Amino acid sequence: MEILITNDDGIYSEGIFALYESLRKVAAVTVVAPDTQRSAVGHAITLTDPLRVVETGRYGKFFGYATSGTPADCVKLAIRAIMKKKPDLIFSGINLGANMGYNVLYSGTVSGATEGALLGIPSIAVSLATFLKPDFRFAAAFSGRIAAAAKKNRLPPGTLLNVNVPAVPAARIKGVSITRQSRTLFNDRFDKRTDPHGQTYYWLTGSLNQKDASPDSDLAAVSRNRVSITPLQFDLTDYKFLRELASREFLSPKR
Amino acid sequence: MEILITNDDGIYSEGIFALYESLRKVAAVTVVAPDTQRSAVGHAITLTDPLRVVETGRYGKFFGYATSGTPADCVKLAIRAIMKKKPDLIFSGINLGANMGYNVLYSGTVSGATEGALLGIPSIAVSLATFLKPDFRFAAAFSGRIAAAAKKNRLPPGTLLNVNVPAVPAARIKGVSITRQSRTLFNDRFDKRTDPHGQTYYWLTGSLNQKDASPDSDLAAVSRNRVSITPLQFDLTDYKFLRELASREFLSPKR
Repeated sequence: MEILITNDDGIYSEGIFALYESLRKVAAVTVVAPDTQRSAVGHAITLTDPLRVVETGRYGKFFGYATSGTPADCVKLAIRAIMKKKPDLIFSGINLGANMGYNVLYSGTVSGATEGALLGIPSIAVSLATFLKPDFRFAAAFSGRIAAAAKKNRLPPGTLLNVNVPAVPAARIKGVSITRQSRTLFNDRFDKRTDPHGQTYYWLTGSLNQKDASPDSDLAAVSRNRVSITPLQFDLTDYKFLRELASREFLSPKR
Repeated sequence: MEILITNDDGIYSEGIFALYESLRKVAAVTVVAPDTQRSAVGHAITLTDPLRVVETGRYGKFFGYATSGTPADCVKLAIRAIMKKKPDLIFSGINLGANMGYNVLYSGTVSGATEGALLGIPSIAVSLATFLKPDFRFAAAFSGRIAAAAKKNRLPPGTLLNVNVPAVPAARIKGVSITRQSRTLFNDRFDKRTDPHGQTYYWLTGSLNQKDASPDSDLAAVSRNRVSITPLQFDLTDYKFLRELASREFLSPKR
């Protein structure tokens, strides 16, 4: 089994190394990841600049390919230019911080997996629900279990699993829930500040809005110390509103 | 009626000016847009850097607010820091180049409208299906018609309409189709090149894969010279696969 790993925290982050150490027990692993942090890049790709790829080591051994691109660029580069054949699975992570609700739209971690899914490869995004003192051990071991299960049971091509792991020791994990994406969103606001030269600048900040925590959602699972697995897809069509629009005069042709 | 306009081609592009000229006939318009091109940024937001906002003019008059951010940043800044009250509608565009199929995931234009929809404001992304010698007149006039219709009939809060306009003179437009997102995707590849210093670099290129052109899709409508309107939503949950996953052993808890 061949696995491609990427992330958005950068190739030198601890989360990607923990994932690598776990997955190389069950597969041949190739790492292609951004050379620095690329958080909140959404599904950005690089069109107007060239991309660089540099072989990098960790702890004195070859580790992977660092690129000047986004997570989506990394997956494209891996498939189209670096790997000799398509991987069987793609993992993106382990991210420092959860990726749940509508916030998946901003996530570079999920975006790496999205690119894999669009290219027809089963892809898994893994995030740890904390920004502080992360312990990646359980999330890394769980990723290994997903990979082993995928080897046995085959995930369908183009599947994306968005996995969020509670930041508690393994003994306190209560189980696994298959969930839907919640309607969670950041309540964002801007700090308006003045720079040393007297000019105004704005800095985005905010807190997680936890309004939609219905029991079958990603947010509810993680808050009950359960691993959340949400299958995602990318036909964004609003079919319900499509039928309504098609049946009313609102925007009908008038020539 | 108050309308916010943004785009991803930048505040000095021709497309945003054509849209502005059309919409200010029917509404009070505020322009908040990137200071340079931000194409293919997906739904990126800026967390690790401050954002700047500069008042800019065009043709000797005040035109709008140029920001150092992405389209999603622009909409957040407009709502949270610049405008006194929430706009009634948000328009993003007019983009140079279509935004159809899975390619909407990469689109800064659609992302501006996505941010508006997430903030509960009816939002419309408008793209012209050409990269060459654009004539924005029909697309701009059509945007004015959507705004006028929205004033009369009210679009639901959080609606996103992804509008793609064929690049033909108004007389050759055959009508309007309410469509679903096609499975269209770029067949991308990398040019591998050597820089003047002997170092390798990669540049993304490719062509549109037009395989899914089923008659009810965005791609089919535009290729028949019809305006395509696709309603989009952002619950990415794959409900079909969710039921399957929940019912099988594949990833069930095993502790």
